[in-house]
Amino acid sequence: MTRDATDLTDRKAAAEDLEDLALKDDYALNPAFVAMVVDAADRGDAARLTELLTALHPADVADLMGFLPADYREDILAHLAPETLAEVLAELDTEIREDVLEHVPSATLAKALEEMDSDDAADVVDDLEDDKRAQVLAAMPEQERAAIESSLAYEDETAGRLMQREVLSAPQFWTVGQTIDYVRRAGDELPELFFDVYVVDPAMKPVGAVPVSQLLRSKREAALAQIMEPVTEIAVDLDQEEVAYIFDKYHLISAPVVEPGGRLVGQITVDDIVGVIQEESEEDILALAGVSDAGRDAGILDIVRSRLPWLVLNTLTAAVAVSVIQAFQNEVAKLVTLAVLLPVVASLGGNAATQSLAVAVRALASRELNASNALRIVGREMVVGVANGAVLAVLMGAGVYVLFGDPWLSLTIGLALIINLFVAAAAGILAPMALDRLGRDPAVSSAVFVTFVTDFMGFLAFLGLAALILL
Amino acid sequence: MTRDATDLTDRKAAAEDLEDLALKDDYALNPAFVAMVVDAADRGDAARLTELLTALHPADVADLMGFLPADYREDILAHLAPETLAEVLAELDTEIREDVLEHVPSATLAKALEEMDSDDAADVVDDLEDDKRAQVLAAMPEQERAAIESSLAYEDETAGRLMQREVLSAPQFWTVGQTIDYVRRAGDELPELFFDVYVVDPAMKPVGAVPVSQLLRSKREAALAQIMEPVTEIAVDLDQEEVAYIFDKYHLISAPVVEPGGRLVGQITVDDIVGVIQEESEEDILALAGVSDAGRDAGILDIVRSRLPWLVLNTLTAAVAVSVIQAFQNEVAKLVTLAVLLPVVASLGGNAATQSLAVAVRALASRELNASNALRIVGREMVVGVANGAVLAVLMGAGVYVLFGDPWLSLTIGLALIINLFVAAAAGILAPMALDRLGRDPAVSSAVFVTFVTDFMGFLAFLGLAALILL
Repeated sequence: MTRDATDLTDRKAAAEDLEDLALKDDYALNPAFVAMVVDAADRGDAARLTELLTALHPADVADLMGFLPADYREDILAHLAPETLAEVLAELDTEIREDVLEHVPSATLAKALEEMDSDDAADVVDDLEDDKRAQVLAAMPEQERAAIESSLAYEDETAGRLMQREVLSAPQFWTVGQTIDYVRRAGDELPELFFDVYVVDPAMKPVGAVPVSQLLRSKREAALAQIMEPVTEIAVDLDQEEVAYIFDKYHLISAPVVEPGGRLVGQITVDDIVGVIQEESEEDILALAGVSDAGRDAGILDIVRSRLPWLVLNTLTAAVAVSVIQAFQNEVAKLVTLAVLLPVVASLGGNAATQSLAVAVRALASRELNASNALRIVGREMVVGVANGAVLAVLMGAGVYVLFGDPWLSLTIGLALIINLFVAAAAGILAPMALDRLGRDPAVSSAVFVTFVTDFMGFLAFLGLAALILL
Repeated sequence: MTRDATDLTDRKAAAEDLEDLALKDDYALNPAFVAMVVDAADRGDAARLTELLTALHPADVADLMGFLPADYREDILAHLAPETLAEVLAELDTEIREDVLEHVPSATLAKALEEMDSDDAADVVDDLEDDKRAQVLAAMPEQERAAIESSLAYEDETAGRLMQREVLSAPQFWTVGQTIDYVRRAGDELPELFFDVYVVDPAMKPVGAVPVSQLLRSKREAALAQIMEPVTEIAVDLDQEEVAYIFDKYHLISAPVVEPGGRLVGQITVDDIVGVIQEESEEDILALAGVSDAGRDAGILDIVRSRLPWLVLNTLTAAVAVSVIQAFQNEVAKLVTLAVLLPVVASLGGNAATQSLAVAVRALASRELNASNALRIVGREMVVGVANGAVLAVLMGAGVYVLFGDPWLSLTIGLALIINLFVAAAAGILAPMALDRLGRDPAVSSAVFVTFVTDFMGFLAFLGLAALILL
């Protein structure tokens, strides 16, 4: 192959074709591309593998690794350019990262970590085994190591862990021109990207912020103190869910993080918050369904472990609930139709409770439900419960009359439905509110309780009424 | 009251106290503050109401309105400074906004809309009744009206609706210095905040982007073409969920929106995306629970309407499922214990299916599950289903033996549990995957189907086995 201009153009065009092929229109990885990577790895074709990986954004390389079995991942890491490695490591899911980090030499890792912002670097170091962590940190320059160590000193899922220590701050008396000149000089001390200049007093407490676009559009001689806007500070020990709420509410792009005394120690940028929001909402969905997240790469045993506890708990509550049926077994023996209709009453109650519960969990998460409107919202739920119960009572009552021709049976199931849907609505809203008041996550464990209550009440109301009305 | 310096200081201190009182440590509104607003409104104390509202960020005023019954909202709007009105309107929930907009005079509204970025203004106009919309638009300057109208021409929940038309673009041949000088001159044509300069070719197609922080840190004589980075374009008709996925994946702060021909027509910024992510994840939680969002301000009737359809559908599927019990009623009459244990088998199946379903919906939403790994993930789910079934079979079998002393009954319920948990795992993962393949939202309607399958199979497996083994 000659290395003339035509050939270069050809190769450039081929690279662009690969980029087009790699992603589907919705920017998700193309399964055909994944298959090409697997094929190249299987054939041991290093040149082709490098070519394929070069066509990908680091985030897509991380994504690709998630789709591949563990054996291929080492292969991929070995074919990454050193500067890409840092970015790919920052993007990987924790459980995949823990796995691949074992295979990256400590010296390579130390170099990659130097390239990263302190928050990303700390996340990676956090996933290392103790031995390797010591080796890697020892191989890093003093300043970077100190930044990572102080980041790891903050608790997981707090502002301190989310923040990067690199931050652009300027004293109150500076002008726009002085600030711009400082930025041109400062270089590596500044974060790779920044969106606000934090204006600080002599004690390093933030007193305002100037968006970079505002800085750009102001006259050089304008004083920062004149053009700055009020700033929303984040306490370093704030939970990441609260941080996300603040960013969402005030449409923040970045925010200064302060120590208890008020001193500026870092900044959080919105791109980290987007990840937190995704994470927290995934946690809520999974918690409501009674699963802890085993991760995309989990083995069978991990998954079983993440699901069994809730199923076992549910077996126990179900055993208690069905003891009601056992108490009424003479009645059931006399009228087997009761056994046929029982699950309908319990199931409708369970579903109505799940509806209330999901609405309540969502409202609590978005702070739309608090002491100011709690009474009104709870009252509304209960009225809705009775109203839905009444509609279903008419429907079921009519259906039961058509099938079994007994108006008293229709009355019994109708009343039982109204009672159970009222109980469902009450439990569905009160259980998460109570957990929230106790400082617990309302999504976790509400569902078990609520299902138990509607099963128990469904059986009791239907069989109790049947004993009174029918037998 | 004298207007001397001491008094001014006192009043400033009082205003700061109010700000501190308004929000709790987690930046949620303080119920005590809400009560003060209600009290001032009840007493008709306009001065106090203005004082209280001035202490709040516009986002908190919007939040406050959500906590108050409808009658108070008009009062609050009337006491807002004109420049705050625009910001509060942009923050309000749609259903509250629709309601309050009726009470804002068209001329006031037209002025407020001029203050807003075109995407926010279009959202507000979209919530107006037809008559009022025509009036308000007629009262606006030609350019702002045109921007709003062309924004509304794009479909709801697409990139076109999310984007603002104000955007900072620069030709390839400009230097950093030329760009900064342009920004200083351009003024109002530019967006209020911007984070990237889009570098465009003569046909206005984006060829790269320069983060504003990069612009600030580069030498004035550097060419944009030299320092620009590759840019991720968003097609104007892309669904907002896909847009959010792209922002999350590539950690974007802003992105250029292009027409089908590739021409730059606007930009989307990450603060709008944070809202979209919250919205989409709330939709998933509610859809899985079988509720459509009636909104925080919905009346009883709206809420009943948002929940009844799923309950009615569930009544119908439950009727079909319990027809299995009816078919076996002779068996149940012979052995009433079957009626007692039946709900346990169905309920555990339903819960296991909900677990699979939640995991699958989450994996599909985050694009972690696609054709490349579908077989592996589905296989894993089924093995997990059998494994969980086996553990529960042993537990329940032992419990049933202790209670009823019949090893054959233990065997029957054990086998039924293994079968039903296998079916639950299969339905929980295959149903959302099938819906996704058909281009439907996997969170919607999977749950009904899956619950039906596990009820039906639970009854059939337990009673069928009982007929074979026990009777």
